Amino acid sequence: MSRQFLAEGLELSGGDYAIAGVVAVVALIALVIGYFLLKEVLATGQGTAKMQDIAKAVQEGAAAYLKRQRNTLSIFGVVVFLLLFALPADDWNERIGRSIFFLVGAAFSFTIGYTGMWLATRANLRVAAASREQGGREKAMRIAFRTGGAVGMFTVGLGLFGAAVVVLVYTGQAPKVLEGFGFGAALIAMFMRVGGGIFTKAADVGADLVGKVEQNIPEDDPRNAATIADNVGDNVGDCAGMAADLFESYAVMLVAALILGSTAFGSSGLIFPLIVPAIGVITAVIGVYITRARSGEGGLVTINRSFYVSAVISAVLCTVAAFVFLPSSFSEFGSQYANDGNPAVIATVAVIIGIVLAGLILRLTGYYTGTEHGPVKNVGKTSETGAATVILSGISVGFESAVYTAIVIGAAVFGAYLLGGAIALFAVALAGTGLLTTVGVIVAMDTFGPVSDNAQGIAEMSGDVDEDAAQTLTELDAVGNTTKAITKGIAIATAVLAATALFGSYQDAITKALSGMSTEGVKSFIDTIVSPNTLVGVMIGAAVVFMFSGLAVNAVSRAAGAVVYEVRRQFREIAGIMEGTTRPEYGKVVDIVTRDSLRELATPGLLAVFAPIAVGFGLGTGALAGYLAGAIATGTLMAIFLANSGGAWDNAKKLVEDGNHGGKGSEAHAATVIGDTVGDPFKDTAGPAINPLIKVMNLVSVLIAPAIVQFSVGPDASFGVRLGIALVAVLIIIVAVVVSKRRSTTITDTPAQPAESQEPAKTA
Amino acid sequence: MSRQFLAEGLELSGGDYAIAGVVAVVALIALVIGYFLLKEVLATGQGTAKMQDIAKAVQEGAAAYLKRQRNTLSIFGVVVFLLLFALPADDWNERIGRSIFFLVGAAFSFTIGYTGMWLATRANLRVAAASREQGGREKAMRIAFRTGGAVGMFTVGLGLFGAAVVVLVYTGQAPKVLEGFGFGAALIAMFMRVGGGIFTKAADVGADLVGKVEQNIPEDDPRNAATIADNVGDNVGDCAGMAADLFESYAVMLVAALILGSTAFGSSGLIFPLIVPAIGVITAVIGVYITRARSGEGGLVTINRSFYVSAVISAVLCTVAAFVFLPSSFSEFGSQYANDGNPAVIATVAVIIGIVLAGLILRLTGYYTGTEHGPVKNVGKTSETGAATVILSGISVGFESAVYTAIVIGAAVFGAYLLGGAIALFAVALAGTGLLTTVGVIVAMDTFGPVSDNAQGIAEMSGDVDEDAAQTLTELDAVGNTTKAITKGIAIATAVLAATALFGSYQDAITKALSGMSTEGVKSFIDTIVSPNTLVGVMIGAAVVFMFSGLAVNAVSRAAGAVVYEVRRQFREIAGIMEGTTRPEYGKVVDIVTRDSLRELATPGLLAVFAPIAVGFGLGTGALAGYLAGAIATGTLMAIFLANSGGAWDNAKKLVEDGNHGGKGSEAHAATVIGDTVGDPFKDTAGPAINPLIKVMNLVSVLIAPAIVQFSVGPDASFGVRLGIALVAVLIIIVAVVVSKRRSTTITDTPAQPAESQEPAKTA
Repeated sequence: MSRQFLAEGLELSGGDYAIAGVVAVVALIALVIGYFLLKEVLATGQGTAKMQDIAKAVQEGAAAYLKRQRNTLSIFGVVVFLLLFALPADDWNERIGRSIFFLVGAAFSFTIGYTGMWLATRANLRVAAASREQGGREKAMRIAFRTGGAVGMFTVGLGLFGAAVVVLVYTGQAPKVLEGFGFGAALIAMFMRVGGGIFTKAADVGADLVGKVEQNIPEDDPRNAATIADNVGDNVGDCAGMAADLFESYAVMLVAALILGSTAFGSSGLIFPLIVPAIGVITAVIGVYITRARSGEGGLVTINRSFYVSAVISAVLCTVAAFVFLPSSFSEFGSQYANDGNPAVIATVAVIIGIVLAGLILRLTGYYTGTEHGPVKNVGKTSETGAATVILSGISVGFESAVYTAIVIGAAVFGAYLLGGAIALFAVALAGTGLLTTVGVIVAMDTFGPVSDNAQGIAEMSGDVDEDAAQTLTELDAVGNTTKAITKGIAIATAVLAATALFGSYQDAITKALSGMSTEGVKSFIDTIVSPNTLVGVMIGAAVVFMFSGLAVNAVSRAAGAVVYEVRRQFREIAGIMEGTTRPEYGKVVDIVTRDSLRELATPGLLAVFAPIAVGFGLGTGALAGYLAGAIATGTLMAIFLANSGGAWDNAKKLVEDGNHGGKGSEAHAATVIGDTVGDPFKDTAGPAINPLIKVMNLVSVLIAPAIVQFSVGPDASFGVRLGIALVAVLIIIVAVVVSKRRSTTITDTPAQPAESQEPAKTA
Repeated sequence: MSRQFLAEGLELSGGDYAIAGVVAVVALIALVIGYFLLKEVLATGQGTAKMQDIAKAVQEGAAAYLKRQRNTLSIFGVVVFLLLFALPADDWNERIGRSIFFLVGAAFSFTIGYTGMWLATRANLRVAAASREQGGREKAMRIAFRTGGAVGMFTVGLGLFGAAVVVLVYTGQAPKVLEGFGFGAALIAMFMRVGGGIFTKAADVGADLVGKVEQNIPEDDPRNAATIADNVGDNVGDCAGMAADLFESYAVMLVAALILGSTAFGSSGLIFPLIVPAIGVITAVIGVYITRARSGEGGLVTINRSFYVSAVISAVLCTVAAFVFLPSSFSEFGSQYANDGNPAVIATVAVIIGIVLAGLILRLTGYYTGTEHGPVKNVGKTSETGAATVILSGISVGFESAVYTAIVIGAAVFGAYLLGGAIALFAVALAGTGLLTTVGVIVAMDTFGPVSDNAQGIAEMSGDVDEDAAQTLTELDAVGNTTKAITKGIAIATAVLAATALFGSYQDAITKALSGMSTEGVKSFIDTIVSPNTLVGVMIGAAVVFMFSGLAVNAVSRAAGAVVYEVRRQFREIAGIMEGTTRPEYGKVVDIVTRDSLRELATPGLLAVFAPIAVGFGLGTGALAGYLAGAIATGTLMAIFLANSGGAWDNAKKLVEDGNHGGKGSEAHAATVIGDTVGDPFKDTAGPAINPLIKVMNLVSVLIAPAIVQFSVGPDASFGVRLGIALVAVLIIIVAVVVSKRRSTTITDTPAQPAESQEPAKTA
């Protein structure tokens, strides 16, 4: 178990202040570099007027969505701000800081998402334009990766800056204030992931159902009223949602490391977790600048190289930092710790475990979702016996990859914990910061995907791009598919490491809240932890993950139904669309998807916040611990299962489209299209949202733990208050679910009438 | 927490002996009634010679499979027998009894499965024959339900008899011996569920892929070499596997109740858990005999009525029994317990909670999988937009139903626990025995399904049944579909209740093993329980469920591939099959599926036994507790998800076949056929096997707990031994997985060559 060295010594020394200051400056430098990368991207050519027109429509749609989302979330943010304010705190300084930095975290999270979207909607046009020039492949790739680099720099810069400022300002109270910061970041990221995920897949599936299936026109055809919405979706989902999510992963992991660092080492524990990601910033810069496509090599090879190079540099620099900044023995914290090992060595190995974990996940995900390996080839092969075998084999791939990835993550947690000795939990958190050193490059890799996807869309819609250029864009798009899957794997790994660390801090919160109570009280309290209630908690935690996934998938189906209905209406009521003489009303579809996805995110969002409250106050701390464990375990497996089976189906379709098993237009192709459509909400809506879900639930638990204890034992104990709070939480969840259920019936009823479909629907 | 009243008083009084004796007699009476029901079924008409020919082939195939399975399992049984013998025990009496009754439990489990299969393969012929007579519907239904009644009587009779004998012979040591009995029952049931599940779906899917898709001949066509194998599968999977599984549920629940009963009440705690299921036997007899189809009412209504009537009678009789046999105050166990409530009231309410739980699951499952309710109708509606939306909506239904069912089960556990006060865990176990009172009727309901399914197959193949009779058989088959889903829900509920109870006894086992050690040792030991390792354990537990499900689904795909290959070969090499002049070699296909499904069950079986050993010895008792909790929680949700989404797809197909959304042959129908094929291994292979999986893992943990503690603390502590055992277990799992993986490549490679397919495969 973690021991508390120098618990009273949470004062920063002069040297500590200096280091924290340097870290803050490094963070600012990252922001400046991001700005220059952004400038570089914006300075490139913007292609034809037609291309610019299309890009403008996408930009406006995306901006409008995010603005409306900001307004919706503001209300939610204010409510949570007030609730947070009401929770127990040591003093006013902590109470105010926690609430203020909740808002800061939320604002940062939104800003990163917005910036990512803003830049992506401009970069896609430029990538499309570059693909038309001489040496287009290298130029296009460079722009796409520079865009990612800019977003990556903003992500790590803002995260690190926020954390460093909190440490500088609040020192001893920094951990408590950081809880607010992390919670704000995670909450907004979850909403952006869910909302963006619903938006992008509702528009995508809706556009395909009417366009490809009913009207038999190609993807991204300008006659389809949902085309712009589809492209907007890529940006608000895959860009804004993803960027906010990775920012949140970064911030929460850092928060967990700082909380446990201060528990383990006092003030020095607040400094080292800042140094590691600062090193990550430096290596990310190197990674982004060395990414240069060599002629003749696949895009994925280039990106992987920059990942490995920056990972190795990180490992070396972190080792140096550990030996410079950490003591070589625990004995300085007291002679009784003399035999507890070498802190510098422990920290080094822990950080390297994190870096290696990132590399392993990269390889595992690449193996299970890449077109050149067995699993996807096997899914492709099953397309010869029809869609059912494609679905079954994809599900098997998802299950299997989830198991191995979860075991690798579990081994990393166990390894860090085992080697940590006296500072076991902190070692787990340090492994997390090791993982973080790769986030800059990861964001760059991931942004690559939607930018090239959108560039392809703009090229297709404008018709202003020749075949060679189109080939380049298609290749980049395929690379983007795999990088997207890898990001999800790494994001969920941060969820587990952060959660494990926070799980520990949750236990600390309870222990601390219990201290000072009568032994009898504490004993009877401990009794309630080792009880079947804990098992019931685990079950509810697992159930919430299933519920959340089901809600997300359902929301996509519903919103896609509304899109189908509107596109059909436009084809029917507006003359000349099919002939290309009248432009469809793109904005209407964007409005509908905007409205629906904002409405749909309420239920899963409320579930995430209020389920831990209901379990914690209703069943007690033991059940809440069980709840968290169940949600983390099932959430990890479910997230990887959804992401990888979706990725495998997508790439199996690409395999067939590349001419295998009958090629485009064959029965085998139709089977893989079905697989891909099933995978869409798996991999882009439900799967990625589970990562911030876990973090939100974890932070809510950490925040409410003292209040639960306060009302459970001691002078304020009141079964009535606890039950009352739990009932209110349950009631909110029930109302949210019922409202969402009711919507289910009203919307799907309407567009399902096949009256206006020209031919029977074939495949989705 | 459970308190131990009269811990020293585990001697049965004369009255107790008398009651246990009466219970044993009641159990024997159940067996006799089962025999008379069996006689009644066998006395009915056997139809035409052609029908008898077909039935004979099915009987022989099923018997041959079960005999080979018995031989395979015997080896496994002997190995486990020896391992069990080596585990720590209090004395030789306990050691020998535990191992011997392991074999008895295993033998009973197999016997029930074999008898269920034996009778079903004879009853199906008689149901088919009866459907041809005057008033055929009522007669056919009566035979099918009488068959189920016989199997139900054997199930509860053998389970209750075994437990009563153990209590009579071993008294104080009964709980330990019962662990062996339950383990034997669960282990064999798991193998029969997995093997039978693979057999039935491999034959089904394989037959369909070549027959319906490639050769365009109807289902159950005698020209298809896999037809007999398909019908054999229904019997070894849905009958033998299911009967063994429900026997195991019955036995393990009873074991858990007796273990906790003796902990809570001493000897009286060994008696009451026997009385409740004895009442269940009586009410099951009533339920079976009152089941009489009223003309004009659906088959499901008849079956439901018999369920509710017997449930109400059970509740009343159990209340009477509680007030007669239990004290009205805990004060007789010591004055300090005077205010702990009324044991009779607590027991009554707990038993009623169990009975109500069964009813709720029945209703929930009926709602989510029945053709007359929203969910299935909605899945049917999505067939208009293609297979992808069918798959997505079915998955949503599965997720949602899993969540609500899990919450209902969790609420029952929590409710029983909360009301239990001093005997909380025992109250949970009593709720389980309440659930058990319905098992007799449940088995009867479930056996109904495969018998009518097979009767339909025989009718179709023989061509000796007119249209009216065929209609009757189709209707009975549809009723069977829903009853099958209900059984799975109730089986998994017993898994959770038994697991919660055993979870408690696992804690007891650890506490007991720790007693007598130094306080320091105990303290440091407790420390290892509250650690991230526990979280890692929860993750591994959840991962094993995913792995097991993936393995089961994969096994079906592989074995189905082998069937496709063989049937294609016969069509190609044996002249005259297609013209109907030569009979295909049915036996060859039966042999292939027999061989493959026996081979495929090894890997999931080894995983179930050795994963808890690896976690327990490798990571310690805290991690093992976490492992169990993770496996129970995720397993419950996964099992219900798989069962209900499969059921919803199956019935959505039936909806379309009844003329909705375009009817048979439409694109919508093709879409639902894809859904149904995906659902086949979900609902009949992976899903139902999770129930015995949970029990096996739980009992393994209870059995090894003392050994883990012995090697962890105290004089025998040895990290080397622990690590060694864990490594051997991990090695066994790795070898099993690698062997199964290698098979995957060799088999699927061969039949995938589309050389001999007449036309491109369309839908599976």
